[in-house]
Amino acid sequence: MSLQDELDALPGVTATPDDATRGFVFNHTMLRVKDIANSLDFYTRVLGFTVVRKRDFDEAAFSLYFLVRVADRSAIPADEPARGQWLLSQPGVLELTHNHGTQDDPGFAYHDGNSEPRGFGHICISVPDVEAACARFEALGVPFQKRLTDGRMKDIAFIKDPDGYWVEILQPTPRG
Amino acid sequence: MSLQDELDALPGVTATPDDATRGFVFNHTMLRVKDIANSLDFYTRVLGFTVVRKRDFDEAAFSLYFLVRVADRSAIPADEPARGQWLLSQPGVLELTHNHGTQDDPGFAYHDGNSEPRGFGHICISVPDVEAACARFEALGVPFQKRLTDGRMKDIAFIKDPDGYWVEILQPTPRG
Repeated sequence: MSLQDELDALPGVTATPDDATRGFVFNHTMLRVKDIANSLDFYTRVLGFTVVRKRDFDEAAFSLYFLVRVADRSAIPADEPARGQWLLSQPGVLELTHNHGTQDDPGFAYHDGNSEPRGFGHICISVPDVEAACARFEALGVPFQKRLTDGRMKDIAFIKDPDGYWVEILQPTPRG
Repeated sequence: MSLQDELDALPGVTATPDDATRGFVFNHTMLRVKDIANSLDFYTRVLGFTVVRKRDFDEAAFSLYFLVRVADRSAIPADEPARGQWLLSQPGVLELTHNHGTQDDPGFAYHDGNSEPRGFGHICISVPDVEAACARFEALGVPFQKRLTDGRMKDIAFIKDPDGYWVEILQPTPRG
């Protein structure tokens, strides 16, 4: 029995995807953020994301920001509608929702999902060299939830974005 | 000024990604789920995901399930370690965390992030034909948070996974 066969035999699993799901893409994850400038700084400067689209809903007083982490920015179409169609066809897009004004309320904070009531846990960035990446985060003053040396799992770290959302850091390959 | 230049000029944005972020990939989003069989049914049968990896932590009484939505399952390496390295290099992976036993507690529920305290909002699946996809979800009895016909935004829908997490459904291209 292959590894895939074993996983496909788990309770609940449909082993052969329905033809009707052809072309489905896990496109994005949406997080609300308190101060969009702080969040754009973190995701573009610290993690290397690119902002691909901004949509403003002035009447409802919120804006949406769509970010991607791509190897080559020239892959992003320059103009709409090709740009938006490309964006919504990609896996791994991050959508940030900013409700206008929250950044000016000192007592305002979003919930990171890791204390009660729990639910969402984290997002994860995979990196070519987890030790180098974590050393750079330290140098940049990024707060850590878990350093590589903390706890039992020595191959993963968690940093925190400006709202306190956990961002797991790992490398796909064995550490040298 | 190009559209990208305008976005790169937003407060907080670093326009040129640091070379140190080369190879960074937005790999996955983690959600806790109460009943893993129900969740695997939803994500594999309704949305066409494939389970690529399961990790059990018996002492701490939880298991992790990694799922991808791919066009061609033959792209997934059959065996470890290639399989795990491939998985952790992909964008758009979904990680489900199951704390053992929660499925047997009638009062247990996770928080979807969309009532207080808010934070995480939703994940999104893009589909080739949003009307056909929504008609199929209706036929399958999937609960909706927002049908295409609800509210002002007629081009997007939200369905709910077994824990009540919102899953946005949209199509990248104009509707015919």
